[in-house]
Amino acid sequence: MHTLRDLLMGPPLPTRDLDTERLNKIRALAAFSPDALSSIAYANQEIYLGLVVAGAAGLVYSWPIALVIVGLLAIVTLSYNQTIPNYPKGGGSYTVAHENLGSTLGLIAAAALLIDYILTAAVSLTAGVAALTSAFPQLWDYRVAVSLVILLVITLANLRGVREAGTVMAIPVYLFLGCYLVMIAYGLYIAGVEGPGDLATTAPSPLVPVTTVLLLHTFASGCTALTGVEAISNGIPAFKPPSTRNAQKTLNVMGVLMGILFAGTIGLTVYLGVVTGTNETILSALARRIFGTGPLYYLIQIATLLILSVAANTSYNGFPRLASVLAHDRYLPNQFVHLGDRLVFSNGIMILALLTGFLIFAFQGDSHALVPLFAVGAFLAFTLSQAGMVAHWLRERGWNWQLKAFINGLGAATTLVALLIIAVNKFRDGAWIVIFLIPLLVVIFRQIKLHYNEVASELTLHGLPPSLKPPPDPRIVIPISGVHRGVINAVLYARSISAQVTAVYVETNPELTEKVRKAWQEWGQDVPLVVIPSPYRSLIGPLLDFLDEMDREHNDGELATVLLPEFVPVRWWHHLLHNQTATLMRLALLYNRRKFGYTRAIIEVPFHLRK
Amino acid sequence: MHTLRDLLMGPPLPTRDLDTERLNKIRALAAFSPDALSSIAYANQEIYLGLVVAGAAGLVYSWPIALVIVGLLAIVTLSYNQTIPNYPKGGGSYTVAHENLGSTLGLIAAAALLIDYILTAAVSLTAGVAALTSAFPQLWDYRVAVSLVILLVITLANLRGVREAGTVMAIPVYLFLGCYLVMIAYGLYIAGVEGPGDLATTAPSPLVPVTTVLLLHTFASGCTALTGVEAISNGIPAFKPPSTRNAQKTLNVMGVLMGILFAGTIGLTVYLGVVTGTNETILSALARRIFGTGPLYYLIQIATLLILSVAANTSYNGFPRLASVLAHDRYLPNQFVHLGDRLVFSNGIMILALLTGFLIFAFQGDSHALVPLFAVGAFLAFTLSQAGMVAHWLRERGWNWQLKAFINGLGAATTLVALLIIAVNKFRDGAWIVIFLIPLLVVIFRQIKLHYNEVASELTLHGLPPSLKPPPDPRIVIPISGVHRGVINAVLYARSISAQVTAVYVETNPELTEKVRKAWQEWGQDVPLVVIPSPYRSLIGPLLDFLDEMDREHNDGELATVLLPEFVPVRWWHHLLHNQTATLMRLALLYNRRKFGYTRAIIEVPFHLRK
Repeated sequence: MHTLRDLLMGPPLPTRDLDTERLNKIRALAAFSPDALSSIAYANQEIYLGLVVAGAAGLVYSWPIALVIVGLLAIVTLSYNQTIPNYPKGGGSYTVAHENLGSTLGLIAAAALLIDYILTAAVSLTAGVAALTSAFPQLWDYRVAVSLVILLVITLANLRGVREAGTVMAIPVYLFLGCYLVMIAYGLYIAGVEGPGDLATTAPSPLVPVTTVLLLHTFASGCTALTGVEAISNGIPAFKPPSTRNAQKTLNVMGVLMGILFAGTIGLTVYLGVVTGTNETILSALARRIFGTGPLYYLIQIATLLILSVAANTSYNGFPRLASVLAHDRYLPNQFVHLGDRLVFSNGIMILALLTGFLIFAFQGDSHALVPLFAVGAFLAFTLSQAGMVAHWLRERGWNWQLKAFINGLGAATTLVALLIIAVNKFRDGAWIVIFLIPLLVVIFRQIKLHYNEVASELTLHGLPPSLKPPPDPRIVIPISGVHRGVINAVLYARSISAQVTAVYVETNPELTEKVRKAWQEWGQDVPLVVIPSPYRSLIGPLLDFLDEMDREHNDGELATVLLPEFVPVRWWHHLLHNQTATLMRLALLYNRRKFGYTRAIIEVPFHLRK
Repeated sequence: MHTLRDLLMGPPLPTRDLDTERLNKIRALAAFSPDALSSIAYANQEIYLGLVVAGAAGLVYSWPIALVIVGLLAIVTLSYNQTIPNYPKGGGSYTVAHENLGSTLGLIAAAALLIDYILTAAVSLTAGVAALTSAFPQLWDYRVAVSLVILLVITLANLRGVREAGTVMAIPVYLFLGCYLVMIAYGLYIAGVEGPGDLATTAPSPLVPVTTVLLLHTFASGCTALTGVEAISNGIPAFKPPSTRNAQKTLNVMGVLMGILFAGTIGLTVYLGVVTGTNETILSALARRIFGTGPLYYLIQIATLLILSVAANTSYNGFPRLASVLAHDRYLPNQFVHLGDRLVFSNGIMILALLTGFLIFAFQGDSHALVPLFAVGAFLAFTLSQAGMVAHWLRERGWNWQLKAFINGLGAATTLVALLIIAVNKFRDGAWIVIFLIPLLVVIFRQIKLHYNEVASELTLHGLPPSLKPPPDPRIVIPISGVHRGVINAVLYARSISAQVTAVYVETNPELTEKVRKAWQEWGQDVPLVVIPSPYRSLIGPLLDFLDEMDREHNDGELATVLLPEFVPVRWWHHLLHNQTATLMRLALLYNRRKFGYTRAIIEVPFHLRK
């Protein structure tokens, strides 16, 4: 058990190792940027799919749409640059909105981010597998299985801990960057030599005209290019000190790289007049156009698959951290607070993996179907985070605060406009699911907090006298199925802890009762035996009735304790031959707490079988 | 909860109603004969499929093969007639073989019968759905789902209890008998008017020659016609008194009806030269030939589906009863002995339903694939039962014993020959599975009995002094997560039952320890507090180590008792927010019993939350 676990996840790490687990910039870029960088894969694809229905006349709009999105990217990057030094402990949009705009808007940001992390993982994995099946169409039928296997590998890597995860992830990220930068450079060279391609001859004939709605729809889908930018601001504590400075630098490098990759690929696609068929991505078609179907093409596809796979890793850094922050503020169950024994938030990682796997399965591994759900959460979080920073500057003032407020205000305003465009244009395609889920999650967060607050007020020792008298001996009831050593053992234990012990025999077959009574007279240690008739042969109902009756008669405010004798067999399969009645009784006693709002103390006394 | 259950299964019945739940002959025929009567559906089909590959030259052998099987049926019926009065308490082959041939052969018979009951249910349901899809081919794709729904309905009817089951089942049985007797009569009339059909022109051209192996193979498959004959001898106690006389009469009526239906349908099929295509059963083709594709044809198909569906009911009478007898003899787990609260053996019914559902699913609802597994068990049980009766007569003698021994001996010999033919010819098609499972089951039966015997010898009070001193106060250990009312409540309970109480705090975050220590000094009721450091933040490992260490230090042969404080929330979903640690600790303590062979007493003390 322990060895398999250690092999997969590594041995436990002590708490004092926490600081040495932090990331330098090279590793941090690999850990936090894949989502942002790789989003060119699905953003390109969505822009292409959005415009191709309008033929060549539509596809030429790729370039201006890409430029608007790059502009948006620049604003958002600038905006987050101002957030990082003010919130060095991380928490990103949730923390910023919570502190500056109040708890409700903060929780909305948190809900949006949690949903978005899950969708990031699902969209990235399915888009990565789409890159793979562009190169190897025979894998198309196995896309769900392939996505799930990659998900499993990433989950295990993350359960091992953040440094190893960074190492595993670094290679694909830099491979991807290298490949794409080379491809863009070589593509520009070809473009210079060969001149522009003619979209009018290559593009399929238009099915619909170019309309504002079509362009807005495409812009909304293309905004997925920006998802992932906020990851760094959530993860500042994972950076090596000076962590805020390092985080800012990493954010800026990432923003520039994103812009180059996105504008470069879209620009080349339009300029060279690249189009594609049904089962190939547009990026795959571009790579084929530049490199031909040779080794470099396959390397590009593999690199795309790999970075999209590790893009899911952004979620593995962000989701468990945010869940931990929320749990610490008592908006999520307590178990999300804790670091697991590899210094990672294991519970958050496992919940994320389960939900992502569910999405991949439910949407049959189709990233195009998942995208409409996707950008709403990210842009909602952007807007709230930047609006929160504006409120921050208005309150704090300080050096040059007007400029800072203007930059964050510009960020908030532009992302809000984008958000509204996305929500309206993608509502019927799936955005409604997220728009419905976010308020639901906020209600759940609030209910959880309310409950914990109420429990805390019930548990407070305030008003309790420091010296309390223990209650008298509890009344102990032992259900017996016969008279044997296991039962005698239990009776002796009961007498060692209380003078008020009663044995109960539920009579399902009256022929056996006399034998039990006689044996009890001889061996029963003077403990009284009560026989309860059970004409319907049920063991549990009559016992529960007897206990309630007994409590009523004593009327001392105490509930009788039930002592269950249990066999401890030597081999596990022997359990199938014993203890069913004890297990069922325990469950029935626990079920009472649901039915009547109370339960009683239960004692399980083992009797060890030797064979 | 209770109302849904009552609606589906009816209210509980008291034990004294057992006698009034017995069946008269009309209902008993409906309850025990469907398997036997309906087996013409798959036996016909198997004989046809076995011979059609040899074309018309093969199909003419249907008639002699049918006659041999009818002869076999007569011998088996006669044989069981002699069994019934000697074993009025039922148990059939298992009881007879066990008493007369020793426990090993008895257990072989039991294993064979248990397997056969499951296969009866699976084959009957799938063959019934084949009748349905012959009439409605569009249902073919849903055959597994349709089979499983019918299985569910039958299971619920049986959980309601035997009399209702008898009532529900009686209508289809008599509908089937009426339909088929009318069809055979009308078919004979048509045959008289029209004269013989010409198989040579209708049959497909032969793919293989007629060989002895082909005929034996077909005979082996056709023997499935006899399955179910033994059901009555297993169920004698379900008959109204005089139960043996009524059982014998019912058996004889059933044998005659089986002979008429089987010989009648096969004879007409051959005489009229009926053949069929791939997706229709031969019985469906015969009905279409006689009645045309009109209302009567559809009635025949529905009646076939219905009787095959209720044929599964034979298993629901036989399997749980046999399992109960085996459990009473301690060859199966105890929980199969008991009557459920509707006076039926609920556990046996549910196990049967699960295994049957599994077979239908695993064999994708194809009765032709299941048949090779099928007849081995039934014929093995026949042989052992008849051989047991021979041994019985040799020992008991009595009036006319030689004749009786000869009849049972003839039964044993003929069924043994058939069994060998089946086992050899069907071995590779699936019979090997059953031939492998039967000895495995016998070994399991023996192991279970051995275990129960050993436990009984460990539990005996023999040698125990009648008056025993209770052990001293147990040492009680309370793991605490902090200091609050729930913990204080648990400490008070612990002090009421023992003077030796220790609280344990596992320190995962050293910053909090001092606060806990201080609070304990004030509120800890003078109970000592032990703080265990946990550098790896695990709560459970350090606790288990501490307990083992403590037991070693005391070295008094007693294990410390662990007392777990637990919250009792008002709403079920609040459980998600509490008690995870207590639940995990309890599981870890129980897991110890597997790892180290011991466990300790566990006390769960509830603390009731008010909101």
